[in-house]
Amino acid sequence: MTGYAMFDDMSQFHAWLAERELANEYRVSVTSLDSLDGWRTDPETGNIHHHSGRFFSVIGVNVDADSRTPAAWSQPIILQPEIGILGILAKRVDGTTYCLMQAKMEPGNINLLQLSPTVQATRSNFTRVHGGSAVPYLEYFRTPRRGRPVFDSLQSEQGSWFLGKRNRNMIVEVEEEVPVGENFCWLSTGQLAELMRIPNLVNMDARTVLSGVSFLTGDRHQRDGEARHPLGHILSWFTEVKSQQQLKRSIVPLRELPDWKRSRGTIHRLDGRHFSVIGVDVRASDREVRSWSQPMFRPSARGVIAFLGRHFDGTFHVLVHARTEAGTADVVEMGPTVACIPDNYAGAVDAERPRYLDVVLGASPSQLLVDILHSEEGGRFYHAENRYLVIDVGEDFPAEPPYGYCWLTVDQLAGFIRYGNHVNVGARCLLSCMTDLISQEATP
Amino acid sequence: MTGYAMFDDMSQFHAWLAERELANEYRVSVTSLDSLDGWRTDPETGNIHHHSGRFFSVIGVNVDADSRTPAAWSQPIILQPEIGILGILAKRVDGTTYCLMQAKMEPGNINLLQLSPTVQATRSNFTRVHGGSAVPYLEYFRTPRRGRPVFDSLQSEQGSWFLGKRNRNMIVEVEEEVPVGENFCWLSTGQLAELMRIPNLVNMDARTVLSGVSFLTGDRHQRDGEARHPLGHILSWFTEVKSQQQLKRSIVPLRELPDWKRSRGTIHRLDGRHFSVIGVDVRASDREVRSWSQPMFRPSARGVIAFLGRHFDGTFHVLVHARTEAGTADVVEMGPTVACIPDNYAGAVDAERPRYLDVVLGASPSQLLVDILHSEEGGRFYHAENRYLVIDVGEDFPAEPPYGYCWLTVDQLAGFIRYGNHVNVGARCLLSCMTDLISQEATP
Repeated sequence: MTGYAMFDDMSQFHAWLAERELANEYRVSVTSLDSLDGWRTDPETGNIHHHSGRFFSVIGVNVDADSRTPAAWSQPIILQPEIGILGILAKRVDGTTYCLMQAKMEPGNINLLQLSPTVQATRSNFTRVHGGSAVPYLEYFRTPRRGRPVFDSLQSEQGSWFLGKRNRNMIVEVEEEVPVGENFCWLSTGQLAELMRIPNLVNMDARTVLSGVSFLTGDRHQRDGEARHPLGHILSWFTEVKSQQQLKRSIVPLRELPDWKRSRGTIHRLDGRHFSVIGVDVRASDREVRSWSQPMFRPSARGVIAFLGRHFDGTFHVLVHARTEAGTADVVEMGPTVACIPDNYAGAVDAERPRYLDVVLGASPSQLLVDILHSEEGGRFYHAENRYLVIDVGEDFPAEPPYGYCWLTVDQLAGFIRYGNHVNVGARCLLSCMTDLISQEATP
Repeated sequence: MTGYAMFDDMSQFHAWLAERELANEYRVSVTSLDSLDGWRTDPETGNIHHHSGRFFSVIGVNVDADSRTPAAWSQPIILQPEIGILGILAKRVDGTTYCLMQAKMEPGNINLLQLSPTVQATRSNFTRVHGGSAVPYLEYFRTPRRGRPVFDSLQSEQGSWFLGKRNRNMIVEVEEEVPVGENFCWLSTGQLAELMRIPNLVNMDARTVLSGVSFLTGDRHQRDGEARHPLGHILSWFTEVKSQQQLKRSIVPLRELPDWKRSRGTIHRLDGRHFSVIGVDVRASDREVRSWSQPMFRPSARGVIAFLGRHFDGTFHVLVHARTEAGTADVVEMGPTVACIPDNYAGAVDAERPRYLDVVLGASPSQLLVDILHSEEGGRFYHAENRYLVIDVGEDFPAEPPYGYCWLTVDQLAGFIRYGNHVNVGARCLLSCMTDLISQEATP
């Protein structure tokens, strides 16, 4: 296969993906945390570490966050201080922009094989701690590099499960010809927008990088013209919330977490809610290392990640929530209007239910601008599936939001992404599902 | 005195300031750390805390920063986790913008009385932990507020002496009439630019807030037109340095710091370099509390904070250094080209001298666009005076900077300020000395 327009129609792409799946062998089996090859549980703390001291650890954290209900809780959390690279190579040919995507297996993925960025590598990967093979295309993302970085910023990942983890999100545009490796393909940004509407196909790492895809085509962002609030107002709202709200946390031994128990090879809550920590054994014929074991986080049920939106003076706005998670680096980030696992609140009284959850669950099909299932980072999370929704709540919806919420245009929100650590991963993934909405805004 | 044009010429202002100085009584005396009223030294750690557990503490830190020479060191550092408010009230009258400034005593100030923002308050101040009187004008800076916040962001302070400290920097524009309190005066932005050229008059808190003054007059920033590098390139440079360089630190007991010793009522290095921790007793007739004692940091000599700059295609650029300090929150911030105490390097071999220091010290008078002495935060630092310099090194100066440095226009640098934690306090103070340069850029 040569050329950038590799697929005339999407059935060809799906055939290619199916072929990649057949060409390689993947097996993932859930196993006990007690028998994970290469991992050990510290007898004093109960924390789980890799023998090498690298990759990641599972530790405990006590959290105090006055903006949350309840305002204090304890949980296991993943500590992975290294900054990895999530990079997409882009090339413009005859007015069309193509991205080099990879068919990549991750053990936690629903559908094992998903589309990932050109490079998706932890520092342990690319410094080859595990003794595997070199990461293809890495040279485009490290200095001195060929090509022009059009989007390059440090972004947080799931604050509910990672303690301050972040990755470097990059889109690098090249002029030169790029050879296409076996598990790689070129897809136009239009084709990617189409694939984003297929459940569990474009992985989280690809989605977060693609949330910056509009920077490829120039900086249309942060224009205040049609927005309800000028940029200065939004920055002040964000600063206010960061200054007023508090996030305190302390690292504690995993075995001392109240409400959590390790038994039958997993770590779980006594009430079964939220998530558990499990072990998996993995075999993959095309990965740097062909077999390994690792702990993973498994949510108790499917989640919901949703923006409520409405038009103001003809321009669509989304209701952004300044949100604190256990692992948030700096008190809050701009997040979706709603992000939770609804089953956790079954039978809860109104005061305990997340704000706006019932608006989301009660939305009619005609209000749904986006409604698609995607899974989260399959390298750490096992079958963590979320329903991504953008809901047009209509112009009767209250214009004045409560404390901690603010109306932003889609362009304004996208503009914050390039500064890093402003927009959380849920909101970024929702933005990547709205690329066609962004284009609509540009040519109304 | 009424009206906003309070001073027809600056001699009237100086007379007003002299009068404020006479109207109040200030006395500051250096005293032993062993006899500080209200403060105690922890017998186990040697750390210094206030009896109330509030305000700030002096603790020890070990630092590992691969971008610095030496790459590892230990030092005392101030821990002050609260976010205070530095706020300036602004009002536009007949096309002129006036700022409400305060004549305020700080014990560490050279010239005790300096010009400070309308509000300069720690959270301990404004929640009245010390039982003092209310902070005037605070209501304009807390929600629900009257007026329009034109600049509102969290900014770091001296990373060399503070561990991750930051304050909320605000400029709030009001429409309504504002009564002028006894120690307060209105000054136009033009008058303030003039006063900025007088040594040790405008305090650090005022200077950092005034670095955002251009947002009052609309957002002219982040235009790439005449700049050497587009914004995307600069963001990528900054992300690259943040990802590649490392800052590791661990809190340690103050009494266990190698190279540091507590004796004769101070904490100092055995070689006398860098700084010492001293005690002061203070009396002030116009402060919330009329007398108190506290520890302060005293530098060993005068410092230098300098931008090297040159024109590219007719537009002036400054050479920004991505700089790590002991207390930097996130690896690096954009800082001056040079920031150090030159005496610390007297007799040092070339490899140990800060890069570009000799260019700064050897600059001829005709190259100096800015050359003025200012003192740092007089509430924590005792006679901490720096020579602020902007040096036009001319177009023969190498256009390609070494790793960790990047050429930015003054407008580009100013544009990063509103996102918070991008530009360090030295660079912000240099920007505030360049307000007239910024205006020159706007109308070449």
